[in-house]
Amino acid sequence: MTPPVPPTGQAFAATDNNDHLVQSVNPDHPANLIPSLCAKFWKLGWVTGTGGGASIREDDLVYLAPSGVQKELMKPSDIYVLSMAAQAKSLDRRTRVYLRSPAQYKPSQCTPLFMAAFTKRGAGCCIHTHSHWAVLVTLILETQGAGNDREFQINNIEQIKGFGRGFEKSGNLGYHDTLRIPVIENTAHEEDLTEFLEEAMDKYPDTYAVLVRRHGVYVWGENVHKAKTQCESLDYLFQLAVEMKRLGLPWITEIEPVKPTRA
Amino acid sequence: MTPPVPPTGQAFAATDNNDHLVQSVNPDHPANLIPSLCAKFWKLGWVTGTGGGASIREDDLVYLAPSGVQKELMKPSDIYVLSMAAQAKSLDRRTRVYLRSPAQYKPSQCTPLFMAAFTKRGAGCCIHTHSHWAVLVTLILETQGAGNDREFQINNIEQIKGFGRGFEKSGNLGYHDTLRIPVIENTAHEEDLTEFLEEAMDKYPDTYAVLVRRHGVYVWGENVHKAKTQCESLDYLFQLAVEMKRLGLPWITEIEPVKPTRA
Amino acid sequence: MTPPVPPTGQAFAATDNNDHLVQSVNPDHPANLIPSLCAKFWKLGWVTGTGGGASIREDDLVYLAPSGVQKELMKPSDIYVLSMAAQAKSLDRRTRVYLRSPAQYKPSQCTPLFMAAFTKRGAGCCIHTHSHWAVLVTLILETQGAGNDREFQINNIEQIKGFGRGFEKSGNLGYHDTLRIPVIENTAHEEDLTEFLEEAMDKYPDTYAVLVRRHGVYVWGENVHKAKTQCESLDYLFQLAVEMKRLGLPWITEIEPVKPTRA
Amino acid sequence: MTPPVPPTGQAFAATDNNDHLVQSVNPDHPANLIPSLCAKFWKLGWVTGTGGGASIREDDLVYLAPSGVQKELMKPSDIYVLSMAAQAKSLDRRTRVYLRSPAQYKPSQCTPLFMAAFTKRGAGCCIHTHSHWAVLVTLILETQGAGNDREFQINNIEQIKGFGRGFEKSGNLGYHDTLRIPVIENTAHEEDLTEFLEEAMDKYPDTYAVLVRRHGVYVWGENVHKAKTQCESLDYLFQLAVEMKRLGLPWITEIEPVKPTRA
Repeated sequence: MTPPVPPTGQAFAATDNNDHLVQSVNPDHPANLIPSLCAKFWKLGWVTGTGGGASIREDDLVYLAPSGVQKELMKPSDIYVLSMAAQAKSLDRRTRVYLRSPAQYKPSQCTPLFMAAFTKRGAGCCIHTHSHWAVLVTLILETQGAGNDREFQINNIEQIKGFGRGFEKSGNLGYHDTLRIPVIENTAHEEDLTEFLEEAMDKYPDTYAVLVRRHGVYVWGENVHKAKTQCESLDYLFQLAVEMKRLGLPWITEIEPVKPTRA
Repeated sequence: MTPPVPPTGQAFAATDNNDHLVQSVNPDHPANLIPSLCAKFWKLGWVTGTGGGASIREDDLVYLAPSGVQKELMKPSDIYVLSMAAQAKSLDRRTRVYLRSPAQYKPSQCTPLFMAAFTKRGAGCCIHTHSHWAVLVTLILETQGAGNDREFQINNIEQIKGFGRGFEKSGNLGYHDTLRIPVIENTAHEEDLTEFLEEAMDKYPDTYAVLVRRHGVYVWGENVHKAKTQCESLDYLFQLAVEMKRLGLPWITEIEPVKPTRA
Repeated sequence: MTPPVPPTGQAFAATDNNDHLVQSVNPDHPANLIPSLCAKFWKLGWVTGTGGGASIREDDLVYLAPSGVQKELMKPSDIYVLSMAAQAKSLDRRTRVYLRSPAQYKPSQCTPLFMAAFTKRGAGCCIHTHSHWAVLVTLILETQGAGNDREFQINNIEQIKGFGRGFEKSGNLGYHDTLRIPVIENTAHEEDLTEFLEEAMDKYPDTYAVLVRRHGVYVWGENVHKAKTQCESLDYLFQLAVEMKRLGLPWITEIEPVKPTRA
Repeated sequence: MTPPVPPTGQAFAATDNNDHLVQSVNPDHPANLIPSLCAKFWKLGWVTGTGGGASIREDDLVYLAPSGVQKELMKPSDIYVLSMAAQAKSLDRRTRVYLRSPAQYKPSQCTPLFMAAFTKRGAGCCIHTHSHWAVLVTLILETQGAGNDREFQINNIEQIKGFGRGFEKSGNLGYHDTLRIPVIENTAHEEDLTEFLEEAMDKYPDTYAVLVRRHGVYVWGENVHKAKTQCESLDYLFQLAVEMKRLGLPWITEIEPVKPTRA
């Protein structure tokens, strides 16, 4: 029998590691889903060489992969769990409190970035990839010079419909809409990205993703389904954008909407 | 025991969801085949981020994936079933009648497009992909200017033999034949593509596929085998065409047929 | 119980389909190996849309995939078997005699081409792919003009060591050796390629492969291991050659051998 | 029962093949891990056509794949084992002593190169790939002319953090650090690479990898985890570098570090 789950956010004795929080036979339990998603992402080339990762939030509990794990080999017992309510405001790594910690690992440097999506946007899942396509898009933008290098834009591509219109808005973007993804500069320490990520989220209140120059992308969504499908759609668009660039095709075009003639 | 299958096209009480229509141990039953095909297509990058899909027709019954499902995770219980005979002529989504609907889903916007292949061509299967190669081919054509951008043409490639000669014609295209695939402009709402798809089918009575600009491709065939292998062959040719373009090689050439010298 | 295997080359009553020839629990039996190899090749993009294939010879018996089968779905029961000794000299499809034929299929048009490798070179396995890289190499060669377009050459690449030095020669090519693969023109009917393939084999007595313009490649070897690894090495080199072309790098270079200084 | 393991480095009777050294139910035993890693590498295109390989060292015992094996089909019983202490100084193939040899195989020509990583750097695992990206990077460098073609350099890419700072140093490289990988010229015989590999290791005491022109790369690490993740990160960077080259983007840039403004 698993012990009863204590109220989230409550303090635990250091000797109680709450292993029951990552033990479930349900394949959709976050502790099972993070490893299966990460294995899928590894095959897509998104989390090569322990880079990248994913985190899931269910109500107050946040499930996180540890630092430095081979993503296709991750196990439920590798997962950290923390309570959002139990955290001090800063979420600084020195004061972060985990309900459950795997032995022999360190917390991921991505933690405060995932937390930003959970606290500022109420996201249920956040994915971080090192996809080549994301990195190449930021490198291509870099060549456009200061002032024109801080935003990826693309319009008139069907896959743009894969994105929600924005935080607390219903419905998705349309085919003719311009998808805008902010780009922030990379920092020497991943945790230091947090303030810039949050700044970008403030400046782009409807975005579900932030590109990090020469590094990758953070993508989130209300739930795992939305985070994953938005991440897939975005990677699709980044790849398309790189291929368009190679063929000399522009990312932004003016296209007159086609009207149906039938009633 | 499964209840007896009522005559197709017959009206059903709203309380009867006909779940038996999607329950079979036969892996080749459409309700099993659509999920297994879609999982395969997901790995090929054809149905990323819930885009694209596939539909199968057996006699009067049409099996359809719902909208917004992760294609590699689809289950037989996710499948819609409709009777062609039971539909009003317009096939408008407001008047469409489903024999079986999965809970919690919405019908796919692709439905009237799949139906066009079934009604106008007697197809047994129709596949819709968002393949990068299909989209890139339409983008490359766009650069050729109005009047030259509405048809993809390629000849003198062995894989062209992967296509039937046309509706109600026997045999396949030959190596030296020119494969012609019409391109229609994308519309803001996928259902609005239907009339343009049908127009293209009228104008190209022998085509088994229609490209949709900046969106993807619809491919069909008499049965699942033909739809899938034609879709694969077409994606192969689209990829080749993009790579030829990058290398400055033309899609259309004049090549003198080689004659065998032996009797 | 399986019936006893009759001496190969012996005539069979038309009513005896010799199904025992394709029934074995040994995964390395040709009737099991052809489907598992073809499934692997399908994932590599070599046998898309029913194109391409593979054949294995064990002593007098030749195992062949049928025409028009989805290569990742092939089953042992789909395999044709013929006896080489039982064939008339021409191997013409009208006079070809099969010991075992699957119901509902037609023999592959590749049959006489596979047979050429078996009869002229004593090969134990022959693979035919429609790999994009093979086709692109023939297209790139085409741009070099008549007289310079009939042979693919590459040297000073480690993977060249993956090829045997030639028919009845021991050992493999060296790093500095030039690998030469003849290119033949494609014909409207695949069977008509046979005489040109045989001509190329006569002209290049040591080659283990023949490229077919705008079509693909035939690769063989003494046994399945050698045919498969030579086919993989060749596809690797074709891909490298296309990428070198894109980067403006020549396929043939003069490189002074490095001498070890230690005894 | 398996026989007791004799002290490593001790001489064995020629009739004792020590098969127990490669028999374990533990998936992380080197004799199981080498085949599972190589199968993974085959899917990544790193060990095509029997090229490339991997070796693991545990204390005094070194586990090696044989020459000429299809890497996705390797079995634990295919593995060679040798004792480092039992070897003469030269490690010449004529004097090399194996504790355990598989029947019907020859030792890999990579053996002395793997041994260099084990003896000079105390590595626990060494991987050799023929990755296209590694080969293309050496070809691109070649065009920079003598003097500028012996080192791959890249900086300001997040994935650089995937590498340790160097032999017996703690911590990893930083985002702004320049990763430098030496390039050695390929030799006609792979074993002759050894002295040049060792020279490069002496000249670059902190490197975990050596590129071999027109051939591939050797990558090692303290243990399997580090060797594999460093190899993945490096292949990621090689691919990125080739794609950057195609887009005209430089591998080395000057980027002012971004300072966090929060305390």
